Amino acid sequence: VVWTNEEGARFTPAMIGSGVYCGVFDLVHAHGRTDAEGVSLGEALGAIGYRGEVACGAHPLGAYFELHIEQGPTLEAKGLDLGIVTGVQGIRWYELQVHGSETHAGPCPMSMRQDPVPVLAALVSELYAHTRNQGDEARCTIGRMSAAPGSVNTVPSCVKISVDLRHPDPAGLARLDEGLRDLAAKYDGDCRVEVGDLWHSPPVAFHPDCIEAITAAAEAFGLPLHRMVSGAGHDSVYVSRVAPTGIIFIPCKEGLSHNEAEETRPEQAELGANVLLHAMLGRAGCA
Amino acid sequence: VVWTNEEGARFTPAMIGSGVYCGVFDLVHAHGRTDAEGVSLGEALGAIGYRGEVACGAHPLGAYFELHIEQGPTLEAKGLDLGIVTGVQGIRWYELQVHGSETHAGPCPMSMRQDPVPVLAALVSELYAHTRNQGDEARCTIGRMSAAPGSVNTVPSCVKISVDLRHPDPAGLARLDEGLRDLAAKYDGDCRVEVGDLWHSPPVAFHPDCIEAITAAAEAFGLPLHRMVSGAGHDSVYVSRVAPTGIIFIPCKEGLSHNEAEETRPEQAELGANVLLHAMLGRAGCA
Repeated sequence: VVWTNEEGARFTPAMIGSGVYCGVFDLVHAHGRTDAEGVSLGEALGAIGYRGEVACGAHPLGAYFELHIEQGPTLEAKGLDLGIVTGVQGIRWYELQVHGSETHAGPCPMSMRQDPVPVLAALVSELYAHTRNQGDEARCTIGRMSAAPGSVNTVPSCVKISVDLRHPDPAGLARLDEGLRDLAAKYDGDCRVEVGDLWHSPPVAFHPDCIEAITAAAEAFGLPLHRMVSGAGHDSVYVSRVAPTGIIFIPCKEGLSHNEAEETRPEQAELGANVLLHAMLGRAGCA
Repeated sequence: VVWTNEEGARFTPAMIGSGVYCGVFDLVHAHGRTDAEGVSLGEALGAIGYRGEVACGAHPLGAYFELHIEQGPTLEAKGLDLGIVTGVQGIRWYELQVHGSETHAGPCPMSMRQDPVPVLAALVSELYAHTRNQGDEARCTIGRMSAAPGSVNTVPSCVKISVDLRHPDPAGLARLDEGLRDLAAKYDGDCRVEVGDLWHSPPVAFHPDCIEAITAAAEAFGLPLHRMVSGAGHDSVYVSRVAPTGIIFIPCKEGLSHNEAEETRPEQAELGANVLLHAMLGRAGCA
């Protein structure tokens, strides 16, 4: 399969083709997505002759295997050529706000302020510590932060951050979620702490038969059997809802991806393609 | 004196009139400052007949007393009607940046990241602790914060905050400055920490004779003799460079200022005006 619009760079959201195939998005909705110039995805597909004749989903899948670069630094760092992907991390997105009281930076003593900044700093430090305590598979990312009203000489009335928590298994993600809510409750006092839920994408576990087929193929090529979890989403996340699915990772230099410096060597790609082929043959009973 | 443009709301910077009188700003420069519509201060003064005939600075000052609301909550909190201001806090402004490495929130394990966020959180917590250790007169305010590129699922390549440090005496302000630079050096490692200087306004100590004249007047009215330091700038900061100067503070409700809710009761203003009058009479030898 070559899925339409995996990246989502021109038409959002990402993974529209696999999403429609797997029933996540409606076809009419998908065709109606427009780019920055107002051109719809349906029009754009028609213009290049790729709108197709066959009803989407009419072609059933017996199994689905995907070969992808890791988009992370682990394989390269461990000196490995291949990763057997057992699933995809679950993700939770939040907006966390700490509300204080706007005050002039000069006249008001610090002991009389409701300054949300030190509350946020302590909470963030504990959130990172809590995530690290959940092991190397847990992730915490704070990609956005702001202070209102945003004046150098004014104690903010509100500071706001985004929080992205990830874990490959539901119980681990639930522990991260609980940790965040516990910290919000702990620091909710003179300054009010508020946690808003933005998004939840549950962890995905790939099909044991597909993982086994990839493992057997990797073994046949004499490769170390390195099992790992994908941190990023892929078409396989949607396809796994309708067919047995597995992913093979090959390394990319310094973990760089979505970047002109993205690099995987031809021999790494060749090895990945061979494991992909033999995993498919194995699963089809032709090995 | 009624100084032109103390506030700086229409024409920046603030305190232009007293600044020109005291030689901080050039008169031509001051007249040339424009508002949002492009009208110059000189034109605006001419249009209302306030440009004046006498050369600025031609009128000498024997001493200068200013009555002002506190713009902070201390007097009200202590149940006091009057504050004898001994000086104005020194101020240093900085932009602090922590540089990390931009990474996808999923694939890269936290142990392999150069994430500037936990570095910033730890540094900010220590900066607040250090400032509190310098006593109740020290101030630390972080009014601005941002993360670049600012995407929920991306570890920031750079986080940036403003830092406003204040202390009434030069040695105290120097200790705060040193503390910030020590922390920047301590946390400068995998993530680079950079401190940029934005502004420095040294502390002001008012004239002992003026402080004494205010004290004597307050005593005559049977008031507690509460000495304090101003956290905000006033025309007196500039005037103190050319004449013996002092400030009297009266309370304002909840410390609110530059706000429609700003409130000082008539009897508080009356008391302040009486102390102002008697301080001036005392200083002039007419008491």
